[in-house]
Amino acid sequence: MNHEMMTAAILTAKNEKGLAWEQIAEAIGMSPVWTTSCCFGMNTMLEEQAKALCETLALDQAVATALQTPPSKHWGDSVPQDPLIYRLYEATMIYGPSVKALIHEKFGDGIMSAIDYKMYVDKVEDPKGDRVVITMDGKFLPYKRW
Amino acid sequence: MNHEMMTAAILTAKNEKGLAWEQIAEAIGMSPVWTTSCCFGMNTMLEEQAKALCETLALDQAVATALQTPPSKHWGDSVPQDPLIYRLYEATMIYGPSVKALIHEKFGDGIMSAIDYKMYVDKVEDPKGDRVVITMDGKFLPYKRW
Amino acid sequence: MNHEMMTAAILTAKNEKGLAWEQIAEAIGMSPVWTTSCCFGMNTMLEEQAKALCETLALDQAVATALQTPPSKHWGDSVPQDPLIYRLYEATMIYGPSVKALIHEKFGDGIMSAIDYKMYVDKVEDPKGDRVVITMDGKFLPYKRW
Amino acid sequence: MNHEMMTAAILTAKNEKGLAWEQIAEAIGMSPVWTTSCCFGMNTMLEEQAKALCETLALDQAVATALQTPPSKHWGDSVPQDPLIYRLYEATMIYGPSVKALIHEKFGDGIMSAIDYKMYVDKVEDPKGDRVVITMDGKFLPYKRW
Amino acid sequence: MNHEMMTAAILTAKNEKGLAWEQIAEAIGMSPVWTTSCCFGMNTMLEEQAKALCETLALDQAVATALQTPPSKHWGDSVPQDPLIYRLYEATMIYGPSVKALIHEKFGDGIMSAIDYKMYVDKVEDPKGDRVVITMDGKFLPYKRW
Amino acid sequence: MNHEMMTAAILTAKNEKGLAWEQIAEAIGMSPVWTTSCCFGMNTMLEEQAKALCETLALDQAVATALQTPPSKHWGDSVPQDPLIYRLYEATMIYGPSVKALIHEKFGDGIMSAIDYKMYVDKVEDPKGDRVVITMDGKFLPYKRW
Amino acid sequence: MNHEMMTAAILTAKNEKGLAWEQIAEAIGMSPVWTTSCCFGMNTMLEEQAKALCETLALDQAVATALQTPPSKHWGDSVPQDPLIYRLYEATMIYGPSVKALIHEKFGDGIMSAIDYKMYVDKVEDPKGDRVVITMDGKFLPYKRW
Amino acid sequence: MNHEMMTAAILTAKNEKGLAWEQIAEAIGMSPVWTTSCCFGMNTMLEEQAKALCETLALDQAVATALQTPPSKHWGDSVPQDPLIYRLYEATMIYGPSVKALIHEKFGDGIMSAIDYKMYVDKVEDPKGDRVVITMDGKFLPYKRW
Amino acid sequence: MNHEMMTAAILTAKNEKGLAWEQIAEAIGMSPVWTTSCCFGMNTMLEEQAKALCETLALDQAVATALQTPPSKHWGDSVPQDPLIYRLYEATMIYGPSVKALIHEKFGDGIMSAIDYKMYVDKVEDPKGDRVVITMDGKFLPYKRW
Amino acid sequence: MNHEMMTAAILTAKNEKGLAWEQIAEAIGMSPVWTTSCCFGMNTMLEEQAKALCETLALDQAVATALQTPPSKHWGDSVPQDPLIYRLYEATMIYGPSVKALIHEKFGDGIMSAIDYKMYVDKVEDPKGDRVVITMDGKFLPYKRW
Repeated sequence: MNHEMMTAAILTAKNEKGLAWEQIAEAIGMSPVWTTSCCFGMNTMLEEQAKALCETLALDQAVATALQTPPSKHWGDSVPQDPLIYRLYEATMIYGPSVKALIHEKFGDGIMSAIDYKMYVDKVEDPKGDRVVITMDGKFLPYKRW
Repeated sequence: MNHEMMTAAILTAKNEKGLAWEQIAEAIGMSPVWTTSCCFGMNTMLEEQAKALCETLALDQAVATALQTPPSKHWGDSVPQDPLIYRLYEATMIYGPSVKALIHEKFGDGIMSAIDYKMYVDKVEDPKGDRVVITMDGKFLPYKRW
Repeated sequence: MNHEMMTAAILTAKNEKGLAWEQIAEAIGMSPVWTTSCCFGMNTMLEEQAKALCETLALDQAVATALQTPPSKHWGDSVPQDPLIYRLYEATMIYGPSVKALIHEKFGDGIMSAIDYKMYVDKVEDPKGDRVVITMDGKFLPYKRW
Repeated sequence: MNHEMMTAAILTAKNEKGLAWEQIAEAIGMSPVWTTSCCFGMNTMLEEQAKALCETLALDQAVATALQTPPSKHWGDSVPQDPLIYRLYEATMIYGPSVKALIHEKFGDGIMSAIDYKMYVDKVEDPKGDRVVITMDGKFLPYKRW
Repeated sequence: MNHEMMTAAILTAKNEKGLAWEQIAEAIGMSPVWTTSCCFGMNTMLEEQAKALCETLALDQAVATALQTPPSKHWGDSVPQDPLIYRLYEATMIYGPSVKALIHEKFGDGIMSAIDYKMYVDKVEDPKGDRVVITMDGKFLPYKRW
Repeated sequence: MNHEMMTAAILTAKNEKGLAWEQIAEAIGMSPVWTTSCCFGMNTMLEEQAKALCETLALDQAVATALQTPPSKHWGDSVPQDPLIYRLYEATMIYGPSVKALIHEKFGDGIMSAIDYKMYVDKVEDPKGDRVVITMDGKFLPYKRW
Repeated sequence: MNHEMMTAAILTAKNEKGLAWEQIAEAIGMSPVWTTSCCFGMNTMLEEQAKALCETLALDQAVATALQTPPSKHWGDSVPQDPLIYRLYEATMIYGPSVKALIHEKFGDGIMSAIDYKMYVDKVEDPKGDRVVITMDGKFLPYKRW
Repeated sequence: MNHEMMTAAILTAKNEKGLAWEQIAEAIGMSPVWTTSCCFGMNTMLEEQAKALCETLALDQAVATALQTPPSKHWGDSVPQDPLIYRLYEATMIYGPSVKALIHEKFGDGIMSAIDYKMYVDKVEDPKGDRVVITMDGKFLPYKRW
Repeated sequence: MNHEMMTAAILTAKNEKGLAWEQIAEAIGMSPVWTTSCCFGMNTMLEEQAKALCETLALDQAVATALQTPPSKHWGDSVPQDPLIYRLYEATMIYGPSVKALIHEKFGDGIMSAIDYKMYVDKVEDPKGDRVVITMDGKFLPYKRW
Repeated sequence: MNHEMMTAAILTAKNEKGLAWEQIAEAIGMSPVWTTSCCFGMNTMLEEQAKALCETLALDQAVATALQTPPSKHWGDSVPQDPLIYRLYEATMIYGPSVKALIHEKFGDGIMSAIDYKMYVDKVEDPKGDRVVITMDGKFLPYKRW
């Protein structure tokens, strides 16, 4: 079972059960962004997490195995076209050099890891219009000098 | 004075004064990411903000005018090559579909605005290695149905 | 049922019934551009709109569900090749900087929303040749300063 | 004098005189989008229009000549990065197939001309937020059958 | 029946009947380039032309309907690789600026329409080697000034 | 003197003399498209042609030498953006496969040369709107079988 | 039978018969590069050549017909990735300007035809390591002046 | 002195002396393609070759030094536009898979080196039109198995 | 059996047998990187190696034949998106010019072969975090001067 | 002083002093690849390293400051054209999936860091031809699960 088939199986089961991603994440005791990303073939679960997810959605062992197999990560077009994802891309590109300048001043030369990395999506109610708050939390990695 | 010349003038003055971006932001009473982005020609200041910045850095009126003029925003390569900015891009692309799925489940069909939008960069100390925490905070915009 | 299958089912039913897009739009009480865009998987309907459309075209519940599911929007080539769509693209690119300059002078720094957005296509008869009149109507969004 | 120098000369004079594009357009008796596009090297003026513009801005004959010379039109990146122009592009691409379907049903096989074409930008006040209304008005051109 | 299936059906019937494109064109009383382009899904026929073609090739009503349906025109790679089509592209690109300069001097600012457009391919015998003569015949469209 | 400088010198002299490309072509006894293409650095003249052109425009020997030197031909973007040249490109791409099919049926397997090639631009007056007629005339080259 | 199916049929028969391309070429009395290129859908055979090949490989008439039908030539990626073909590409790009300069000095302005063209691949034994010798032999085509 | 300046200096001196590339190559006792490629910054000379070339063209030591310095090789567009170089590219891409198949059958798995590589351009007189004969001669490199 | 089918057959058998790539490599007496690359269709085995691998995995003769057949090597996107492979790409691009400068100073003008080439991946335990050590070992090839 | 000017100043001084990169690296007590990469604007030095380098090469404080300033890293073309760097790229792309598979089997899901990373270039003498041995040594980073 490859990762496309795994994702399709999970989406079908999720729709039949009528579960939201946040409910599935809660059922396995992990965060929603990470849980969803595993189901989209962008991260791997440990055995117990994969088993818990398959129990929650009544899926068989082949799905659990695929969830533990490192995928070839691929996102298609290098510039996203979907408007929601494009806005994330645009904000990254517009503010990228500013974020870089601030990180270098706060931490020195290095980067924010995208591997030792956590991400959250929150809804903040606001009378002028609710707000989406996305938190990117990555370990600072200083450049090695050798 | 175009925006490239404006940025160059600000960077030179900043280095001479030995000020960090956070200090400049504090001097004009605005946030660091936004202040830096204006100086990089990615946002426009109001007159009083532009004047305050030019006083802080001892820059003349031409810089203040340029800071208030809407720029043509442009970021060069559509896929960034600088490792720090690439990690932001990679995280956006890897987790974009997961973030999209969660926003649709929490808010309905719509997007996070990149215009009514705020962004923060924080340093969180951690004994296993300090962490960069980036907050993206944008208004949810539901799709119009007409 | 994914969005490609949904579109195909709608097109088949539409041809069999011999209905124009404007007739379908009228049947559900919405505008033609928006109604067509939902059928092409570029917008989502509310439940009552989706049901009305499926009744009009004698389509089943799976189509109605797909019409309410946020799609991954994707338009293929970044430069369109179809001559009709290319002319729209060309006009956008030729006049884009002029439109930008005028919006900034009329409204200040900000953009026209493509989300809180309405669009109309009209036919204006003219003895020298009928004219296509397209109206793009979007909320002005000023850039947040924070 | 090439078109880049022409545009630069006009922008400098415009800023010195403190005139808006709409005021310049009114002074020469033409519409704002078209007038601006000529100044950006995207259209050509007739002699009397070019002379009127140069009188308004106190520019010399070389500018008037350049305004009458057909330019090589070029807009750089095929996908625009400036957020305001990108929203126009995104709306064009998202709704392009819908607009195409409606034009074919209303007019038959053909296109909207981008040459026999007029464009307007209006501000419509609205208590929920002012709206940008852009009108694209082009002659319908049926495909020749031969 | 989509346009790819339509083209395949026509090619199969054409090969079985052993007819050349010029014979098919003659049978329906239209020109060879236009007739061929309709069969390749690049133009639409009127009902009587579509019927005549289907009679000539003994094809059914579904083909006739597809021939009358405006296609999404698409040509794949933006730079053609087939040597015959590449030579046309190369000549267009090498001589494009010269043709543009001559049209502007002969007609003023405007373009040659690719919609109100006719095209012919002729064979001219020549003892030094026969020549291909291609005629592109399009209406001059002057730019609107508004 | 490189070819960019050569073109600039010719354009300046041409404007000062107030000569059209057709007049320059006539003065050297060659066709307008070819003469213009040499001046744009897309073809080379023989010595007598180059001398005649330089006499007509009162240009010096360096220009005549450059006109006889084979240029590195280059047209920039692989998809042209100028609307006039784009229409030529679009017609080439829309009708390319049809032209290919007809050439193969009339001549066999081979191509139309873009080297042993002549091109003409004519104005044909027409009460419904004057027409641009472009003739591409190239030697048929059959593929070698070896 | 399209050209992909034709190639597949030939490769299967070739493997079953255990014949090398050079043996097949010899059987039909033509050169190896040309024979192979026909089988890969990059050239067309005359009837007698196609028949001879089909007899050699025990293939039916459909293959012989496809071998005589002009293909749409297409090579996929514009920069080849296979190391053997990349080396040919690299040598072409590294030495292209040198070859161009030498051809212009030896022959005048013009090109080497890729249509009236022959190509050979030879093995030259050498104690320091055998060498691949590729010969490209094309007719010189001088640019037409008209 | 960088390689662009080196090439410019050599071309100027070559034109002043009226020497052909073949004469320069003969003067230093090396082949024409290689000598020209060094002058175009695509190969490096040994000291004695560089000195001989600088003596032949009366150039100073800075040119001789640059000729011995390994350049960063770069050819601009990945698909060449100049017709002469494009024909070489096209022949490489059309016949690349055939050449690959033949080399594997003659030599086994491996490539033709583009480093241990020699190249020649010859003129072969022919009553039907002179021919350009290009010889590519590279060492066969078998893939290492480890 | 093409190379995609070959890879799929090997992966299925490998998973069923529960063997790691290093175990398979050991079974055939070759290195892990090379063995894996053959199974991914990026290198060819000799007959005895292919037979040993097929015995180890209980695969039939068709797989052994495919393992000995030179593949068309292809890696998809020219910039890799998978984070692990992107890091290798990034390091290559960031340090490429430095590696080039050092090789030229140590060896003279030439390259490191990617054909007469060996590669190893090792795990080095480290209390601060284990390290991946990749060794690229290729023959130096000096440029031929001819 | 920007990084391009810094690199140019270092290269000029290095050539005048006649020092190799390895000698410069030794003078500051760091490795050759890292030292060279700092001089090419791809890494930053600490103050004492920058001062030592400027003393070695007799460069002033502006160079030392630039060496300590985090650069915007950029490598131009996404596919390198220089043959030496292309070979590194090709090996990365050909063997990337194999390296990925082996790292996942040896370490679990994660990547090799390109930040906590060291790189060495060595010359290994070999009677069959000296070999270039490149060592990439990066910390393994396991994916965070959250």
